[in-house]
Amino acid sequence: MCELLGMSANVPTDICFSFTGFLRRGGETGPHGDGWGIAFYEQGGYREFRDPHPSADSPIARLICEYPIKSNIVISHIRQANVGNVGLANTHPFSREMWGRQWGYAHNGQLQGWQTLELSFYRPIGRTDSEHAFCWLLGELRKRFPQPPEDPGALWETLHGLCERLRALGVFNLLLSDGHYLYCFCSTKLVHITRRAPFGKARLRDADLIVDFVEHTTSNDIVSVIATEALTDNEEWTRMSPGELLVWRHGEISARYGHDTVASEVASSMHKL
Amino acid sequence: MCELLGMSANVPTDICFSFTGFLRRGGETGPHGDGWGIAFYEQGGYREFRDPHPSADSPIARLICEYPIKSNIVISHIRQANVGNVGLANTHPFSREMWGRQWGYAHNGQLQGWQTLELSFYRPIGRTDSEHAFCWLLGELRKRFPQPPEDPGALWETLHGLCERLRALGVFNLLLSDGHYLYCFCSTKLVHITRRAPFGKARLRDADLIVDFVEHTTSNDIVSVIATEALTDNEEWTRMSPGELLVWRHGEISARYGHDTVASEVASSMHKL
Repeated sequence: MCELLGMSANVPTDICFSFTGFLRRGGETGPHGDGWGIAFYEQGGYREFRDPHPSADSPIARLICEYPIKSNIVISHIRQANVGNVGLANTHPFSREMWGRQWGYAHNGQLQGWQTLELSFYRPIGRTDSEHAFCWLLGELRKRFPQPPEDPGALWETLHGLCERLRALGVFNLLLSDGHYLYCFCSTKLVHITRRAPFGKARLRDADLIVDFVEHTTSNDIVSVIATEALTDNEEWTRMSPGELLVWRHGEISARYGHDTVASEVASSMHKL
Repeated sequence: MCELLGMSANVPTDICFSFTGFLRRGGETGPHGDGWGIAFYEQGGYREFRDPHPSADSPIARLICEYPIKSNIVISHIRQANVGNVGLANTHPFSREMWGRQWGYAHNGQLQGWQTLELSFYRPIGRTDSEHAFCWLLGELRKRFPQPPEDPGALWETLHGLCERLRALGVFNLLLSDGHYLYCFCSTKLVHITRRAPFGKARLRDADLIVDFVEHTTSNDIVSVIATEALTDNEEWTRMSPGELLVWRHGEISARYGHDTVASEVASSMHKL
């Protein structure tokens, strides 16, 4: 299995703190040593850094921790290979252009029978179930919406339906973005937290690091982080429900599909710092 | 204007030496301080590093110099903006997937009337003439060849024709690759050099650096470098002809279209080290 990390913020924000904890799971505090990647949406542009080596000792990952790239949306992934060998072509995030927007995608889980998903506009470059599913999903969206729909709700509902079809094939936890919205679909495991004023301190689970967000934010900042497992041990993270799709914009939830209130409990007990 | 750097090699080779000289032109020995990018094809995969800041003082560019990424094909670009503001979305290389291959592209020059090039499968994310031309070019190839043709010569001839159409709109020096071949089209200025045994020393023009390739190669290695201007001052670089398309594979020229023998002179006089 793999792990996911996402961010949605209303101001360009760096993800150095969260990423510092996350990357330790790539071969150090976690077993996900088969490559890693991170995608940033910045000022209408997109860039990604991908490496087929363990993140815990990757010079490129270290750079990402030390060189604050300020972004509104981030998608990151550390890999423990199941389908497809270890290599750059099989390293998330994957991306494709649709409607003049770069769509970035990362998947946690494993699918059965994914080879039968019929592709249209997009073809995988590597050999993972994940990339195949992405090409299928984006192709289905494009067939249904050759242009961006005026009502984004129609798109989101279709996306939710496509995610449910993939969930029926196995485990399909998803981070997806077009630079405008961050989409998170939960199949088995995704948690999230929204930080806003009054800001406090946070302590990483995977590294000996505490940050006081007061020192790095203004009172208007809203920053949400989505991850497979909570990254801090002194904050409340909310667990998503299986089958739930969250649409994030500017750090807040714009829309929610397939929400099951019973399962939406607090993910981790809160230990005050 | 901008500058281009490309590499084709028969063994995975790092481009640290050439890139060290090249990046100095991005704000130090040259005026191309409006962003830079580099794309690597490795083991069937593709990754790129792009930064809208001057390469001469970019921590990411420094990492690329110090962290040898071994690759068979490289495309790099430093930008001096004309069409489109300085920003990530306007930073080369651009890339799109076609036939399950990632096509990487960088352009030097400026086009007129490019807005009238009618797009099909691919849309630009940024606002440059370069990316628009790329989307058009790749879309035209895809319309003509929905699948990779059995005879690659048919593709190359079509590509040459499309490049000539773009050259008619202005200056169109091109580096393009699908991971199998590196395509170089010369509109006004591109030079190349092939290094093979017996290897010697090379001295950068833009930085105080000499490399002895004997120490870094085996006798079977063939490595070709293509650039807007010669990167070393003690070797012979060959100047391409306007209208010429070179198809590189494993460090050697596989095919050549539109070659004008008269203009194919030695680009720089050779100064022995």
